[in-house]
Order: sequence, then structure tokens, then C-alpha cells
Amino acid sequence: MNTVIARFKVRPGKEAEAEEAIRKMAASVEAKEPGAQTYIFHRDRKDPSQITVFEIYAGDEASSVHRASDHMAAFNALFGPLFDPASVKITRLERIAGFSR
Amino acid sequence: MNTVIARFKVRPGKEAEAEEAIRKMAASVEAKEPGAQTYIFHRDRKDPSQITVFEIYAGDEASSVHRASDHMAAFNALFGPLFDPASVKITRLERIAGFSR
Repeated sequence: MNTVIARFKVRPGKEAEAEEAIRKMAASVEAKEPGAQTYIFHRDRKDPSQITVFEIYAGDEASSVHRASDHMAAFNALFGPLFDPASVKITRLERIAGFSR
Repeated sequence: MNTVIARFKVRPGKEAEAEEAIRKMAASVEAKEPGAQTYIFHRDRKDPSQITVFEIYAGDEASSVHRASDHMAAFNALFGPLFDPASVKITRLERIAGFSR
């Protein structure tokens, strides 16, 4: 199981386009990546420009499928115009305990 | 739906006791809080002393039940000795799009 938290910021004035790209990306991951178990975009309640993605993949193959997907390429093509690449922070996590139901 | 990310650090030398407290807390939340939909403790792969908890509650009542629970009081009683209270960062999130399955 591979768990990742990705954080990055929406560029000012790009909120609506960013939300459209986010909804499209989430729908593509759900439809096309059976190895993606959880994939949720959020905005911070205190700073709505701050995006947090919580991602769980079944394993390394599922992570590779995600990175190599056509929808990832499409999202990456939009990334620079809509989000600040310098703000990207990726944290890779190992589960200790817990549940989702 | 209330989504929270909590981050804090394990004190050096307290790794085993911290993991025991974490496992007990996760089991109590699962058993006693039907309004907790997701509750997962992780360690960072790069810095195993860094703990990240990803939490989803059905709503404000479920969040209140969590905060007022006996197991939360028990975890808080252990918190200072096992974790650094100055390291605590709580981020409240609003879901934009995504799924868990």
C-alpha cells in the first residue's frame, strides 16, 4: 500500500479552472485506475488556495499506472497555468494503524 | 463531513510506546465512534518520527463525540510524554472531489 499526501497552491484568479481540472482528474482516476483505493482533493478551510490530495494506491504497480496515465499527462499540462509548481510538496506515508469505512 | 489532518512528532526513544498508544487509539475510534468514517495514523517514510493522522467525521456531532471521548482523554494523558505538543499542526480541510473505495 502506497499512501501519499500532495500539497500545492492554486494561482490567484484561477480558482474556477483549477476546480474544473481537479474534478475531471478525480473522475478519471476513479474510472480508470482500479488500483487507486482513495483519491481525494481538498482545500484548506483557512486558506482555500491551498490544495491537499490524499491518495492511497494498492501498491507500486498502481502508483506507476497513476503516474503514467493519459489523465495525469493532461492534468500536468494544465498544472503550471493553474497551480504554482514551486508550491508542490509530496509526502510519502506508511500506515501504522487505522481504518476507512 | 469534517476532514482533518493532524501532524505531530514522536519523542526520541519513545517509538515503541508511541506505536502502542496509536494502535490502541485507532482501535478505540473504530470500535466506539460510528461517526468516524476514516481514521488512519501514518509515519513519514523520510522521517519516521513524524506522525500524520488523516481523519474524516460524518459531521460536527461526530467530531464532538471524538473530542469528548474517554479514549481521547486517555490518549491526551499519554500525549506529552510520548509526543512533542509543540510539534502539533492541525489542518481542517473541505473536500472538493474524489473517492474512497
